[in-house]
Amino acid sequence: MPEQNRTRNPSARIEVLGVGNALVDVISSSTDATLTELGMVKGSMDLIDEERMASVYAAMGQGTELSGGSAANTMAGLASFGIDSAFLGRVRDDFLGDVFEHDLEAIGVEWAGSVASEGPPTGACLILVTPDAERTMNTYLGASSLLGEHDVDPTVVGRAEIVYLEGYLFDRDEAKAAYAAASAAAHDAGRRVALTLSDSFCVVRHRADFADLVHSHVDILFSNHDEILALYETDDLAAALAEVRAHCPLAVVTLGESGAVIVTPDEEVRVPAERVDGVVDTTGAGDQFAAGFLAGLVRGLPLSECGRLGTVAAAEVISHLGPRPQVDLARLAGGPPAP
Amino acid sequence: MPEQNRTRNPSARIEVLGVGNALVDVISSSTDATLTELGMVKGSMDLIDEERMASVYAAMGQGTELSGGSAANTMAGLASFGIDSAFLGRVRDDFLGDVFEHDLEAIGVEWAGSVASEGPPTGACLILVTPDAERTMNTYLGASSLLGEHDVDPTVVGRAEIVYLEGYLFDRDEAKAAYAAASAAAHDAGRRVALTLSDSFCVVRHRADFADLVHSHVDILFSNHDEILALYETDDLAAALAEVRAHCPLAVVTLGESGAVIVTPDEEVRVPAERVDGVVDTTGAGDQFAAGFLAGLVRGLPLSECGRLGTVAAAEVISHLGPRPQVDLARLAGGPPAP
Repeated sequence: MPEQNRTRNPSARIEVLGVGNALVDVISSSTDATLTELGMVKGSMDLIDEERMASVYAAMGQGTELSGGSAANTMAGLASFGIDSAFLGRVRDDFLGDVFEHDLEAIGVEWAGSVASEGPPTGACLILVTPDAERTMNTYLGASSLLGEHDVDPTVVGRAEIVYLEGYLFDRDEAKAAYAAASAAAHDAGRRVALTLSDSFCVVRHRADFADLVHSHVDILFSNHDEILALYETDDLAAALAEVRAHCPLAVVTLGESGAVIVTPDEEVRVPAERVDGVVDTTGAGDQFAAGFLAGLVRGLPLSECGRLGTVAAAEVISHLGPRPQVDLARLAGGPPAP
Repeated sequence: MPEQNRTRNPSARIEVLGVGNALVDVISSSTDATLTELGMVKGSMDLIDEERMASVYAAMGQGTELSGGSAANTMAGLASFGIDSAFLGRVRDDFLGDVFEHDLEAIGVEWAGSVASEGPPTGACLILVTPDAERTMNTYLGASSLLGEHDVDPTVVGRAEIVYLEGYLFDRDEAKAAYAAASAAAHDAGRRVALTLSDSFCVVRHRADFADLVHSHVDILFSNHDEILALYETDDLAAALAEVRAHCPLAVVTLGESGAVIVTPDEEVRVPAERVDGVVDTTGAGDQFAAGFLAGLVRGLPLSECGRLGTVAAAEVISHLGPRPQVDLARLAGGPPAP
């Protein structure tokens, strides 16, 4: 398939490289009744085809289009903290592909992905936000559905201090192969690999694969409460934390209003949540927590400070519509992350 | 040129029909320095070609895409007040055209426009919002640049109690012809014609044409402070008001933080502005004032109440990013407009 790999500054530093689905979000206010009518499970992410996308879009209200994608959102957050970040994903040479690439570059994230000149259009995620600020997502992967090993340039991966991968990739075998390729290239170059579990339903769909990866290849794991419970098939958070710290060097579990807990084989650090009045849209909360945490980690800060940066970034993004920061996160956090 | 006129409910009531440019906005935060670098005059609307659009877009930050267009925004506001509204404009059968049409229909505005299957793509407006919440607009008209007399269906116009036209149409002769056709069809059917002057720079470019129209064909004129001064080539608001009330049955002049003044040959009504803490983006303020005012007018309310509805709608839209209401305006105003 003819396409170009457009890595702009082949020698520039990459502190964090994100690998994930390249999606433009279409966000609309909705109601619980509409979710029910459309047969959606609130808070979940469903993979949909073009036909379903057309019918969901027709039933949705007026939309706002904003670049999204879980790992790409995290890279946007990192750039806002002043961290050198890059993103590897796959779009088409169409309107949404241009928007996606423009929006990354406009905020200083290096585009290290592929632009296909044929095949399905750039992917989109239809997001219905209910009055409780919860988001329900319907993803048409489009060009991203063909993201595979051939899109992963080991040179780019080798330039990154941390390679960050989204669990959503696990919904497709080719993307799993891309994940494996990126993770192997990172370890070959002596780099660290981070993974976010992304979605508890996605974890359930691929539990064994996730467990295998977390226990053999992942250096830094991001998860929320439901995802870590799903990974270990338990309803006891303490038991899940004990499991993960026995197998993974560093795990971060976000707990919504209760903040987050960070565990290593030797340590457990609790981080309180930032208080937010008037939560508007929880889209991107986990992505931005990961951005803040990684910003601190890559600059060598203590785990408690990494956690604080995570809560600052998450609090900002849930206070407005859209999955990426609207202010300078380094300034919001009281300065750029530095030891 | 092959295209379809898709009027969905040929017998349904239209209280207000908007005629204008069909545009999707790309909104981005910017700075005064960027405006200067790009050679833009703050607060103005510039017509740009595809090449200039590419260079401005490349220089802009991360964007948010939302349906816009001055008259279309006003129709969206009217729908939010529960008024039966429709919009006549011109898009291409492309991604942004689908977005534009979807967003109107999703909020209950009848699409009475044309969808071209060839020619330039759907128009877009690149909007740079500075920290003072002022918006500077760069419009690539695209498919809208071919809006003309042939797009105006006299049957649709005849169904509307008020036909509302945006002054931006005056930048092109074919669109002027569309305006003339719509206005003639409305008057033939015993309907009223409303016009918004849209932009003081646009008024300066076409002063004589505007003056001629306002004095011979317009029943309801919307303007802001700068536009009415430009129309009458004066720097004295009282003089401009005296001129307009001598020639036009009803004129509404918005005055920003000072509210608005409504004049008829016999009356002058002052309306205070709604207090807004934290203005985010003034895009659409005038459009939404017109929506509130027309909502009251078409339901036969007193001019002071029409003005109050205008200020309620304008205050809502400047409190968030984007040119259309995000809440139910009828509820915000204390109930649907009724005498």
